[in-house]
Amino acid sequence: MTAGPIVALCGGIGGAKLALGLYRVLEPDALHVVINTGDDFEHLGLHISPDVDTVTYTLAGIENPETGWGRRDETWSFMETAKRLGAETWFALGDSDLAIHVERTRRLAAGHRLSEITAAIGKKFEIRARLIPMSDDAVRTVVQSTDGALAFQDYFVRRQCKPVVEGIDYDGAGRAHAAPGVLEALKRPDLRAVIICPSNPFLSIDPILAVADIRAAVANCQAPVIAVSPLVGGAAVKGPTAKIFDELSIPRTASAIAEHYGGLIDGLIIDQADKDHVASLPVAARAVNTLMRSLDDRENLAKDVLSFAGELSVAPRSQQGND
Amino acid sequence: MTAGPIVALCGGIGGAKLALGLYRVLEPDALHVVINTGDDFEHLGLHISPDVDTVTYTLAGIENPETGWGRRDETWSFMETAKRLGAETWFALGDSDLAIHVERTRRLAAGHRLSEITAAIGKKFEIRARLIPMSDDAVRTVVQSTDGALAFQDYFVRRQCKPVVEGIDYDGAGRAHAAPGVLEALKRPDLRAVIICPSNPFLSIDPILAVADIRAAVANCQAPVIAVSPLVGGAAVKGPTAKIFDELSIPRTASAIAEHYGGLIDGLIIDQADKDHVASLPVAARAVNTLMRSLDDRENLAKDVLSFAGELSVAPRSQQGND
Repeated sequence: MTAGPIVALCGGIGGAKLALGLYRVLEPDALHVVINTGDDFEHLGLHISPDVDTVTYTLAGIENPETGWGRRDETWSFMETAKRLGAETWFALGDSDLAIHVERTRRLAAGHRLSEITAAIGKKFEIRARLIPMSDDAVRTVVQSTDGALAFQDYFVRRQCKPVVEGIDYDGAGRAHAAPGVLEALKRPDLRAVIICPSNPFLSIDPILAVADIRAAVANCQAPVIAVSPLVGGAAVKGPTAKIFDELSIPRTASAIAEHYGGLIDGLIIDQADKDHVASLPVAARAVNTLMRSLDDRENLAKDVLSFAGELSVAPRSQQGND
Repeated sequence: MTAGPIVALCGGIGGAKLALGLYRVLEPDALHVVINTGDDFEHLGLHISPDVDTVTYTLAGIENPETGWGRRDETWSFMETAKRLGAETWFALGDSDLAIHVERTRRLAAGHRLSEITAAIGKKFEIRARLIPMSDDAVRTVVQSTDGALAFQDYFVRRQCKPVVEGIDYDGAGRAHAAPGVLEALKRPDLRAVIICPSNPFLSIDPILAVADIRAAVANCQAPVIAVSPLVGGAAVKGPTAKIFDELSIPRTASAIAEHYGGLIDGLIIDQADKDHVASLPVAARAVNTLMRSLDDRENLAKDVLSFAGELSVAPRSQQGND
């Protein structure tokens, strides 16, 4: 294993947990986290980047472990008054959390790019990993559902994922380019691995891969690309992942995950509960504990992923599919 | 005395105290408060209307009596994080307070007028008085000082009124019009009085009177116009009023106040400490307690002003100057 960078693609809570594990076991500046911005939206006039913030708070050690979003030890005075003023309150904004939204919105209006702002905020929180929103261009995840086309947060937060999903669009992805730093990292000759975190494939990872130059750079990078399955014994740890698999008539199996990322990944990490599937998968696979309940779990999964990547990188890439 | 409206012109803290007194002694919907917006500014991307908010909070009974701005029982999580992010923190924004700024900014961006927004917020706080920002057009008080031309909040908050004032401009006043409701109230045949609150004449009242149609409507209204002097024995209760009088070489006297509002007012309320000046003033005057330490003080001053107005309104207006 060289001292080159690791690129992790990730969404919010589940992805952020593995990103933290990687951050803790790697040299701190080796980690590049490319974060989904398909969930971004304007709310109360503020630009909100939920996944970027979840990763930032998680790596800064100030995330709220109970909710999976926002900050721990938060106060809620803003929301109380906002409610009194008749503002929309379905998306909860804590008082401390609000500072990041106000500052981001101010800087965007002043012409700064989301990637610059994200890097600057990461530095203020003393995070040494590089946090990069996937794109400075607007990509918006739209859920086609039995209730019609729904903006992501409308589906996810306001309607609590209740509508039945019929399809998912990533509006703007066709025109979007990778944010500065993403392609540079993916093209580095000393790149060690690309890790697709165990985030929801449809809602968190696909928006990133819908940006054509990111997808191409992942497909063409010289390092192994490893996905970590978000499924454990056919269930998902959190969120609507399992429900969406069903609604899209995709079996909740490691095979389906391998197929979903087919052509892009060299290896798949699945949970030990699914270890009987390893032999039948169309890609190199390893079964480990993927449940990240403790900080140790996060670090151990990170080590397992890195060790698997190290093994895969020994073989020439064209052979890895037959491992 | 009829049941017609009372129009109060006011700025922040001192003016808001008398506005509260008037609100409490009048039928609640009789009071129209026309509020200075020369202090308004954009900060952290938010539209802040300090005087409008001080009056709103004061009439809602949720003002912070210690500071004269902001809300009581406030939390400060936003500012802590904003500071950490390197945002400007010289203008303190409490968490609850922030909701009003975010909501106002959002509605302005959506095309609503400041006067509509102010009225809507007043209703949410169950204030029955009409709170009207002087204008929906931008008027910005600029302090010409030994440190150059300073935006009002830069002078007032960031530099704590330390620069020596050489003059004051009200940028935009020449193009500004009264907000809806201001002229209508001033032109009502049953208008009972116009009360110029004991706010800083240069910083809080003159910006209002710099709006030509407001000044004309005050000058031509059929009811008595009464100013309450902000000076007590040659000193000011709070803020830079006395300092500015000195810097502009204006004597700190009731006479100077009468002259400042000359041609516009029919009566002047001065503090009992200055009662010896009553006879020598060029306008009808009454000396009462103008120090508003308690709620009773506010109500009593309001009653004194209203009673004085009642007496002045009996005489035809042309004779009042000789009272």
